[in-house]
Amino acid sequence: MSKYIIGVDVGGTNVKLGLVNPAGAIIARSRLDTKAFNRNKSRLIAALAGAIESLAADNGLKRRDLLGVGIGMPGFINPQKGLVLFLPNIPGWHNVPLAGILRKKLGLPVFLDNDVNLITLAEWKKGAGKGIRNLVCITLGTGVGGGLIIDNNLYRGDQFLAGEIGHIPYRDSEFEKYVGNRTLHERAAKIFKRPSIRTEDVFVKAQRGDNKARRFWYEVGEHVGYVMTGVVNTLNPQRIIIGGGVANNFTYIAPGVKDTIKKLAIKAAKVQVVRARLGDDAGILGASFLVRNSLLER
Amino acid sequence: MSKYIIGVDVGGTNVKLGLVNPAGAIIARSRLDTKAFNRNKSRLIAALAGAIESLAADNGLKRRDLLGVGIGMPGFINPQKGLVLFLPNIPGWHNVPLAGILRKKLGLPVFLDNDVNLITLAEWKKGAGKGIRNLVCITLGTGVGGGLIIDNNLYRGDQFLAGEIGHIPYRDSEFEKYVGNRTLHERAAKIFKRPSIRTEDVFVKAQRGDNKARRFWYEVGEHVGYVMTGVVNTLNPQRIIIGGGVANNFTYIAPGVKDTIKKLAIKAAKVQVVRARLGDDAGILGASFLVRNSLLER
Repeated sequence: MSKYIIGVDVGGTNVKLGLVNPAGAIIARSRLDTKAFNRNKSRLIAALAGAIESLAADNGLKRRDLLGVGIGMPGFINPQKGLVLFLPNIPGWHNVPLAGILRKKLGLPVFLDNDVNLITLAEWKKGAGKGIRNLVCITLGTGVGGGLIIDNNLYRGDQFLAGEIGHIPYRDSEFEKYVGNRTLHERAAKIFKRPSIRTEDVFVKAQRGDNKARRFWYEVGEHVGYVMTGVVNTLNPQRIIIGGGVANNFTYIAPGVKDTIKKLAIKAAKVQVVRARLGDDAGILGASFLVRNSLLER
Repeated sequence: MSKYIIGVDVGGTNVKLGLVNPAGAIIARSRLDTKAFNRNKSRLIAALAGAIESLAADNGLKRRDLLGVGIGMPGFINPQKGLVLFLPNIPGWHNVPLAGILRKKLGLPVFLDNDVNLITLAEWKKGAGKGIRNLVCITLGTGVGGGLIIDNNLYRGDQFLAGEIGHIPYRDSEFEKYVGNRTLHERAAKIFKRPSIRTEDVFVKAQRGDNKARRFWYEVGEHVGYVMTGVVNTLNPQRIIIGGGVANNFTYIAPGVKDTIKKLAIKAAKVQVVRARLGDDAGILGASFLVRNSLLER
């Protein structure tokens, strides 16, 4: 199938679009400001359709040159029905049959999935999880997400809710409350006795050998390791991939993750802990794999 | 395939054998005392082979009437290689190629798996999990085990260690330390101010309306619910099946499980919590399904 695919990565702040060529490379990009449409779902949908059409047209492509459109959304999605069930961070989205609406507007096959599922798919197909039969991909950022490849398949769960790792009960609350960006921000401010400090600056401090900063990231890793030990003992994956913005600090987080899993998980379980490789492109690439897989499965 | 299968369920105390007819019913049984061979692996293996041959012969069956032998073992198994990696509660078993040894002795195909995996397989094929695509089966007893059916397949994990739910980190220790039989026993003795009380008696008390006894089981359910919430948020299964000796108290445990999952799991996740149906037969039946599946897959 020597056709192009448009991959779309909808986030709370931006919508990123990418034109993916038949070889699987992103050859053109565009972007929308999600916030500008926050209060108006139909305007956002219209803008999405417009941006998809422009990205194709600007690159000299006609409808017949396109295989389809894949879209990752930050929330609960029914990929079978192309339905957006609920988006926690974009108001007004409840049970929106987005794939159907866009299919009509564009005259192209449109497929939806949860954004972290698509990141997982991309990392598995051509990133840090290539060739791995069973893996868990987690994204650490404002929220904490997860995706599962089980027996060489993206596993979505019974109501498409699998991988909600951020909501695993942990201590007095849930995992996300301990490693989400907001918490890290507040904790860093306390530790470094400042009104506010960016986690990026705590990373730079760690690079410079600051012990408090290194300890800070190590402890983040310990939280991740504790919760992931439960996942390891349940799923016995071969590899854990850590992505998301916080994963930029992988060097200083990973030791805490690995030490904790080694200490707490069943001894025989061997699991590799690696950093995600595709960065910001993972969402767009995953969306393109979704289109390919969905059309091949038919 | 109108042949018979011998299913074997090896436990720390007993070995239970069952002759399964082509319709899938257990039509004859026998039993060995595991402890009698505890110190001698080859004697146990010889006794196993003898018991298998006797069970067939006593029922007028020749080798050609048998499809094969399935064996569930309480520990870490490599089912692909028919290898017993390690049995925590039966001394001296490390990397024993049991399937190969018995195949030679018996002249029949022999397949091994972890006991809880086989219970899970049985409950899924003809017990409390019939027709369910994604489920988790846990066994509550001296130890706490788990098995996973994912996308209509028994999922074993990368090193065949999936489902080690008893070892999920929990509070200051692990899950098993809070709901394993030994702990329940001790806690019950404290609550009822006796040197010792059987958990069966706490069940009878609960049946008679004793509030302390009801509270006792409800709290067991809360522990189970907390840990299973993590599993629900990770795997989003349709059903959780609770088996094992402690599950005899299902009536008084289930409310604590359900309430806790409802309170802590992501709201959209719907999961049924049900009691295992096959009781003590699950191991033998699961072993028979293992044989059938393994020979069909070829």
